[in-house]
Amino acid sequence: MSSSFGTLFRITTFGESHGGAVGVVVDGCPPRVPITEEEIQRDLDRRRPGQSRITTARAEQDRCQILSGVFEGHTLGTPIAVVVHNKDARASDYEPFKDVYRPSHADYTYDAKFGIRNWRGGGRASARETIGRVAAGAIARKILQLQCGAEIVSWVSRVQDIETPPPDLDALTAEDVDANIVRCPDGPTAERMIDRITEIKKQGDTIGGTVDCVIRGIPPGLGEPVFDKLEADLAKAMISLPASKSFEVGSGLAGTYLRGTEHNDPFYMAGPGKVGTRTNRSGGIQGGISNGEHIYLRVGFKPVATVLRPQQTVNSKGEEVELTARGRHDPCVLPRAVPMLEAMAALVLCDHLLRQKAAGSLSPAPEAEPAQ
Amino acid sequence: MSSSFGTLFRITTFGESHGGAVGVVVDGCPPRVPITEEEIQRDLDRRRPGQSRITTARAEQDRCQILSGVFEGHTLGTPIAVVVHNKDARASDYEPFKDVYRPSHADYTYDAKFGIRNWRGGGRASARETIGRVAAGAIARKILQLQCGAEIVSWVSRVQDIETPPPDLDALTAEDVDANIVRCPDGPTAERMIDRITEIKKQGDTIGGTVDCVIRGIPPGLGEPVFDKLEADLAKAMISLPASKSFEVGSGLAGTYLRGTEHNDPFYMAGPGKVGTRTNRSGGIQGGISNGEHIYLRVGFKPVATVLRPQQTVNSKGEEVELTARGRHDPCVLPRAVPMLEAMAALVLCDHLLRQKAAGSLSPAPEAEPAQ
Amino acid sequence: MSSSFGTLFRITTFGESHGGAVGVVVDGCPPRVPITEEEIQRDLDRRRPGQSRITTARAEQDRCQILSGVFEGHTLGTPIAVVVHNKDARASDYEPFKDVYRPSHADYTYDAKFGIRNWRGGGRASARETIGRVAAGAIARKILQLQCGAEIVSWVSRVQDIETPPPDLDALTAEDVDANIVRCPDGPTAERMIDRITEIKKQGDTIGGTVDCVIRGIPPGLGEPVFDKLEADLAKAMISLPASKSFEVGSGLAGTYLRGTEHNDPFYMAGPGKVGTRTNRSGGIQGGISNGEHIYLRVGFKPVATVLRPQQTVNSKGEEVELTARGRHDPCVLPRAVPMLEAMAALVLCDHLLRQKAAGSLSPAPEAEPAQ
Amino acid sequence: MSSSFGTLFRITTFGESHGGAVGVVVDGCPPRVPITEEEIQRDLDRRRPGQSRITTARAEQDRCQILSGVFEGHTLGTPIAVVVHNKDARASDYEPFKDVYRPSHADYTYDAKFGIRNWRGGGRASARETIGRVAAGAIARKILQLQCGAEIVSWVSRVQDIETPPPDLDALTAEDVDANIVRCPDGPTAERMIDRITEIKKQGDTIGGTVDCVIRGIPPGLGEPVFDKLEADLAKAMISLPASKSFEVGSGLAGTYLRGTEHNDPFYMAGPGKVGTRTNRSGGIQGGISNGEHIYLRVGFKPVATVLRPQQTVNSKGEEVELTARGRHDPCVLPRAVPMLEAMAALVLCDHLLRQKAAGSLSPAPEAEPAQ
Repeated sequence: MSSSFGTLFRITTFGESHGGAVGVVVDGCPPRVPITEEEIQRDLDRRRPGQSRITTARAEQDRCQILSGVFEGHTLGTPIAVVVHNKDARASDYEPFKDVYRPSHADYTYDAKFGIRNWRGGGRASARETIGRVAAGAIARKILQLQCGAEIVSWVSRVQDIETPPPDLDALTAEDVDANIVRCPDGPTAERMIDRITEIKKQGDTIGGTVDCVIRGIPPGLGEPVFDKLEADLAKAMISLPASKSFEVGSGLAGTYLRGTEHNDPFYMAGPGKVGTRTNRSGGIQGGISNGEHIYLRVGFKPVATVLRPQQTVNSKGEEVELTARGRHDPCVLPRAVPMLEAMAALVLCDHLLRQKAAGSLSPAPEAEPAQ
Repeated sequence: MSSSFGTLFRITTFGESHGGAVGVVVDGCPPRVPITEEEIQRDLDRRRPGQSRITTARAEQDRCQILSGVFEGHTLGTPIAVVVHNKDARASDYEPFKDVYRPSHADYTYDAKFGIRNWRGGGRASARETIGRVAAGAIARKILQLQCGAEIVSWVSRVQDIETPPPDLDALTAEDVDANIVRCPDGPTAERMIDRITEIKKQGDTIGGTVDCVIRGIPPGLGEPVFDKLEADLAKAMISLPASKSFEVGSGLAGTYLRGTEHNDPFYMAGPGKVGTRTNRSGGIQGGISNGEHIYLRVGFKPVATVLRPQQTVNSKGEEVELTARGRHDPCVLPRAVPMLEAMAALVLCDHLLRQKAAGSLSPAPEAEPAQ
Repeated sequence: MSSSFGTLFRITTFGESHGGAVGVVVDGCPPRVPITEEEIQRDLDRRRPGQSRITTARAEQDRCQILSGVFEGHTLGTPIAVVVHNKDARASDYEPFKDVYRPSHADYTYDAKFGIRNWRGGGRASARETIGRVAAGAIARKILQLQCGAEIVSWVSRVQDIETPPPDLDALTAEDVDANIVRCPDGPTAERMIDRITEIKKQGDTIGGTVDCVIRGIPPGLGEPVFDKLEADLAKAMISLPASKSFEVGSGLAGTYLRGTEHNDPFYMAGPGKVGTRTNRSGGIQGGISNGEHIYLRVGFKPVATVLRPQQTVNSKGEEVELTARGRHDPCVLPRAVPMLEAMAALVLCDHLLRQKAAGSLSPAPEAEPAQ
Repeated sequence: MSSSFGTLFRITTFGESHGGAVGVVVDGCPPRVPITEEEIQRDLDRRRPGQSRITTARAEQDRCQILSGVFEGHTLGTPIAVVVHNKDARASDYEPFKDVYRPSHADYTYDAKFGIRNWRGGGRASARETIGRVAAGAIARKILQLQCGAEIVSWVSRVQDIETPPPDLDALTAEDVDANIVRCPDGPTAERMIDRITEIKKQGDTIGGTVDCVIRGIPPGLGEPVFDKLEADLAKAMISLPASKSFEVGSGLAGTYLRGTEHNDPFYMAGPGKVGTRTNRSGGIQGGISNGEHIYLRVGFKPVATVLRPQQTVNSKGEEVELTARGRHDPCVLPRAVPMLEAMAALVLCDHLLRQKAAGSLSPAPEAEPAQ
């Protein structure tokens, strides 16, 4: 289904940007997980518009409300519905686009597919849809943390051609990342990125770049052979984010230039009964299954499609027209993409954690079982 | 499920590399599609080992047999089972690896996950599993061709650092690609690639690179908003292929360096009632939905993990050991990956074609629809 | 997933009886279906408590609100979220049951499964959950009506041992059924049923019986061979309703006493190109697929578990205790089950209608199909 | 999907009665389950035609072969493919029916749905399809037995109007059932049933009846609230069997005549920390979830549609014709339905066992968890 994701920890998001509400239903969440609206709100606040001078000026509060599935601070094992009512809805901003297909937006394709379209603010194609993902991701993250002590940290690794030096994947924290408004853990690079975004914004233009993510503490054994490989599900998760154009896992594109003797990760004994790899070009995944090393990946985002400059396009009547966008838009999606990547990673890993609980060994011989 | 793929055109592959057989069941194939074992065999022959001097010397014939779902040359609408019995099974080649974890292979992670492993030739993690995908892909491709005249062409675009000039995406054919054994459509580049692979093979080493794919003739409207975006399903499909490390769609990674005003694709009227884009950095997909332009993508493959040189590793008893692989292996997976990419692309697009048939409009013509 | 139903027209319900809200998300609804909150409310009003003197006295208004997926009175093809906020929540009624397992309720099994339980009013096991089903069913019914003119009529066919004469399946309408509060289309029988329920209620006891359903206007060809037979999906749908204990389709249990020569339905030509059957013991389904005749079925419901008389039971501490229920409860679930059966039937048939649109023939008319 | 069943322990059957083979792929089977072809064959032998004088005279051996997923006698955790090649294929028996729609068979509806049909022996609608179910059921049953010591016993409870006295559900064994060819555990009743079937067969007619099933040893906590209630999945499983017309669980239809005070099952402490019910009208399931008592159910089967007497029907050209069937057919499906019921019950319960392993509590507090 289009709006559902996950096999056992399964979410369904709903909502248009200017309809009554956006939200999510999480089905398959285990019972007795402690969770509060505040924990979910924390992640939503990192996602919301208007949080800094380099994001859109739309000042949405995005207050979430849990409608079901939680009782006295703990999950019930029943579906958890979370909603965020839409507030700052200046539909009039979008009135001029009502019949006009904004270039590199989804206006034309939605019309081609559905024959109808909520033209207010992008409707279902709006990034507001990711509110549901981030809310559900907060629950998934909590489960991973409680169950395996796993941590997920994402950061802006490149804005256009401004690249940050590779951080220490063992040590990097969310605090390092949130230390500045562009969410790049290297202070001087962050300054240059902020300057570039500010400059581009002044020009009414937009830029893209890459966001990286590291996941620490995942035990060996998560992921499935063949189609539901851990990296395949991560790829789908990330490429389903608005504006994403590329996905790399482990050594990624750089790794495809190496020889086998350079690329292979030698195994060694990292402790009694604990297998490790001396290098980690595999990115913590081998044959689709986690091997206990850090999982890391990179996602590329194109420049935001809404530019405040005149563009050639057509309208739904088949006329060629010129369009100049108005409204309040992000010049660069990357800082707000950081919590989205973390949410998607959490959703994939939590789902595979539950899958492995089911698919793992039956009871007689549980001792040889690292992944549960 | 781990071994199933697709929502409506749904395949389930089965088989280990040295078990009785590998194969696939295709459930959800529409009725009355003309298909023969020969058409399936054609694609399998492009995938099979031993087809040229730069692939593995294993001489598997991989003859397929349709067990069900086809009657008098046409599909019945019931599950189509296709099997290929395993023939050239030199299990003894793998005897030394029985307890040893080959670096950057799936041996350790399978043990960590399942606590048991068919150590003969990689078992389920072997690329032989892709036989089922290619067989099913041949059926999907036939449907796309009959239904919309769609064509899928894939080629080796880079071997290590040897890159081919961008081909003409409007004109490139499978014949161009199959004109040489490395499946690169540019003759002189192909020569250099073949030389490089031959050289690397002599050294007992391996290399990777990238494979590109273009899909022509897909009508606007395929793909779903949110999670099952066309590019997200393509990403999962491709990253589920053995040894893949990166995925790019449309402008891909290069596009993330551009500004919005450079990257956006202006719309124009390409004919009466026909909307086109002047450029195609979107890669034929906007908001997760096809827009009628060519869909194109790129997949990066790491160097093959099996190198014929000594490597440090551990065994299942927790001892550190040295391993030197034997046997017949591919020095470079790319030429054989070409039909795999085409198959995966066909599976994704055929699935979305059927989904759009179901999800598409109801209202315009209800009277002419007795049971569809 | 536990709380999702359907393959293409897929619903996910959420909510506990005394949490914030109950509701449903419908994913996969085709675009451009006209639908309003009023149409949904109409079915909810037939389901709600407090509608007559033979149902529970709880006076819940159950006002629904569409949060997404509908724009200017038409579906968008995106998920439709419908919520009903919980109002009349006298949690104190349930305080005595907090630790006590009510006999033949789900209290003990929820504790055994989840280790946690919202003890207020049955929580997720409450029949309030069916609000989401009925809301989604109203949309499904609208689609069936627009697409094939299908009609679904359900009625109370037996209360305890009081049976209604078989109605004319060609002519029976919802108006006939709603002509009295017990929803039995035969007036004199309805009187006897109402008297019986009133009498039983006075005694603090409860009763069950059967509800029948006929579906008219379904074209031949809906339903799938093997597991997703139309009657199998209907069986699951009906037996998933609270308190249901039996399911019969077509000739049902009575048919199992007949001989083949008595039971078979002879085919005849009912018009040019139109195949009919002279009898309809098959109940409109043969080999899992609709044949164009009326589909009819019967569901048995046990007596409501909440009786206002002392009962022996245990509590969560493992002590044997006596329990006397309080509160406002239905003495007989049947009249309110009528709209639930209709909703479940609509959901199954609408899902199979969309499935058949996807799975149906490709070949005859490919040219007229731009994106469907 | 039409030919798949189960959420985590998921099977896909394939094959027409007179195509190359029938079979099944089991995806999601846990690793390290000991299983052999012999164990599977044992159940297939109870299902196969020609096993006694009251079943069809077709002498199919139905030898199964495991193609994948099993290594050195244990499951690998990868898909298990099992095939049975079709042998005794007298297609000529079916030649006269090629264009004729056999009454109460699936010939017409398959044509209406697919526009094509393998007319040899019923094709996909043949009961040969259940070979795949029974093979997969043997694996599921083995898991249930190893994991919880569960036992599943099914028997013929009624042939037409000849009913067997209720057996002792605590003690009944498969040996009791297989003691005679009609699979009714009461000797004298079995004699009468056999006489009746023999008599009906002589007349070229057919009969139906009911088959019962008891499942012992299922721990509390299996099954999901709302749609995937244990009894709802069992209902779908059973009603998906060819010729089934009714399903009852626990007290079933008889229970709908009782009052709440008569029907409720009082709880008591059956041992330290062990909750039991004094009666078991719930049939071991409350609120969709197992409570630790015996699960029992009843399935009604109509008389076999193939009668050896002249019948009125139509052909695919729209002509009314008379048909007299030939060939070797079962006069009564019940004895061969016994292993089918057991297989379907095993599939449902094994699937829910795995689901509960995944959905059950996370690690911190496992002690309160009966269901794993």
